[in-house]
Amino acid sequence: MTVNAQYRLAARPVGLPKSTDWQYTEEPAGQPGDGEFLVELQYISLDPAMRGWINAQRSYIAPVEIGDVMRAAGTGTVIESNNGRFPKGAAVQGLFGVQKYAVSDGTGVSTIDTSRAPAPMYLGTLGSSGFTAYFGLLDIGRPRPGQTIVVSAAAGAVGSVAGQIGKIMGCRVVGIAGGPGKCAFLVDELGFDAAIDYKAGDLRAQLKEHTPDGVDVFFDNVGGEILDTVLTRITRGARVIISGAVSQYNSENGMRGPANYMQLLVQRASMTGFLVFDYVSRYPEAASELSAWLAEGRLTSREHVVEGGIAAFPETLLGLFDGRNTGKLVLAV
Amino acid sequence: MTVNAQYRLAARPVGLPKSTDWQYTEEPAGQPGDGEFLVELQYISLDPAMRGWINAQRSYIAPVEIGDVMRAAGTGTVIESNNGRFPKGAAVQGLFGVQKYAVSDGTGVSTIDTSRAPAPMYLGTLGSSGFTAYFGLLDIGRPRPGQTIVVSAAAGAVGSVAGQIGKIMGCRVVGIAGGPGKCAFLVDELGFDAAIDYKAGDLRAQLKEHTPDGVDVFFDNVGGEILDTVLTRITRGARVIISGAVSQYNSENGMRGPANYMQLLVQRASMTGFLVFDYVSRYPEAASELSAWLAEGRLTSREHVVEGGIAAFPETLLGLFDGRNTGKLVLAV
Repeated sequence: MTVNAQYRLAARPVGLPKSTDWQYTEEPAGQPGDGEFLVELQYISLDPAMRGWINAQRSYIAPVEIGDVMRAAGTGTVIESNNGRFPKGAAVQGLFGVQKYAVSDGTGVSTIDTSRAPAPMYLGTLGSSGFTAYFGLLDIGRPRPGQTIVVSAAAGAVGSVAGQIGKIMGCRVVGIAGGPGKCAFLVDELGFDAAIDYKAGDLRAQLKEHTPDGVDVFFDNVGGEILDTVLTRITRGARVIISGAVSQYNSENGMRGPANYMQLLVQRASMTGFLVFDYVSRYPEAASELSAWLAEGRLTSREHVVEGGIAAFPETLLGLFDGRNTGKLVLAV
Repeated sequence: MTVNAQYRLAARPVGLPKSTDWQYTEEPAGQPGDGEFLVELQYISLDPAMRGWINAQRSYIAPVEIGDVMRAAGTGTVIESNNGRFPKGAAVQGLFGVQKYAVSDGTGVSTIDTSRAPAPMYLGTLGSSGFTAYFGLLDIGRPRPGQTIVVSAAAGAVGSVAGQIGKIMGCRVVGIAGGPGKCAFLVDELGFDAAIDYKAGDLRAQLKEHTPDGVDVFFDNVGGEILDTVLTRITRGARVIISGAVSQYNSENGMRGPANYMQLLVQRASMTGFLVFDYVSRYPEAASELSAWLAEGRLTSREHVVEGGIAAFPETLLGLFDGRNTGKLVLAV
């Protein structure tokens, strides 16, 4: 008998998720029924959005309920199958949850080619993180060559790709990240024009120095003070892309709204939210472009793989909120 | 000798402008030079934006400096002229300032036809207030028939026109205003589908009742709690039009940002600022449409004319911030 192990939501977190907000369970792995298949997971994706999924409020997706296996994207191998599209041995990715084995009917699942790129990349640059960067920057941001793009959480899975796409589009790209190591990574390895260490103080002065012509496009993953500060630098007709607000997800005092939002009026600018799921029909376009840029060496993909198996999930998740990861944070099962 | 009287900015206000923030002066009226003309003012426009003009920070327009005659739009009659475009006797409107007489070279001035509409209407529905409503709602809001529009400060000069244009476009229109009198005005006289009295408490419950299908377009003149509450009701792809933030202009603790701005992400919605001045080349289109709707009886224009002359300016201005006016607030010189 195959034993599954998983993390289930035990309580709705207040602030940062605590170990007692999770329940570790073991049980027999499920048996695939008609049209179903059994996946053995290899990598689990860790995303800031997961913090929102465990709040009680309905958002763009139903909340994870108390007792449910925690929702997560992952990659794995089909080990038993009653589904011709996903035969035994196929490498797949999908929302399999934080567990070692998952039964699926194929909904939202796709096969991946691990001979072309390592599996974790299909959760990052060639998965929803990369697609978020691609559609957010190009569709919502509409950057034009020579314009200045600022990206927050720029060393993260989404930000690192968004900034590099900005460079490919011929823009000046400035990343905001925490600490000198990440800033060096942005400039030296990813080719950003400049990086701002928000932990080094005086964000506004640093931003002014590195965006002498203002900010035409802001790709925001962070919210809070960083969003407010960048708003003071936007240009006429600027586009602010709301991709996330990771600085606010664990706030116990409610979200901080952007007090400088009236700069949108002064500058005739817009602030627009989006969700990558709306672009499913265009995922092939994004995958094809991103793959080509990777192959040409114009795009660098960084994955931060944490070993430790399912048991390491609660602690690894916290890394997203204290900035431990550079690139895509993935848990090896 | 003609004696001019004016209000000049004496100090930068903290919070609501106090009488000591203004200086009343009398001096000889200027003499028009080559290409200039002298206007005797009849009506002065009072606008929430004036509060922003007297802050020190440069915004979309240079601040009024200490000692300057307060900037204001107004209407009047040319009484002396060395300018063929604006002959003696012409009725004109322009940024003539808070004073009885103004010398102008014609920059930003246009003639008005007081036989077609009373002069105060050229400062309101047929002036920048009406044009703000027209371009903001139609260009930024892009409402479609059957959609739900919410307008804040709906009994004001801009909001009352924006809501009525929404009705003309075939939308459900809900106005937010302060007090039962204004709410009755919106529904009974302007034809809004519903009105919400924000002073009556439980704004969220009232909003939910009157927008059962959510809010597709929000025309916001107010900011603060009202903006935050409406954000909880926006629909997929909604447009939030940032026209003003009158609830925040006198704040002594900085602006309140919209804490619920992440609803823009959840609903793939946008928040966009605009300035009517950008549409100068299209003013004739707006004037023509608004005039036709007035003539057809589909649009009602309300002006709130305060008698009392220049001396009444400081106190009359405060009416904008405590909600004394219904419709366009104008001071009769």
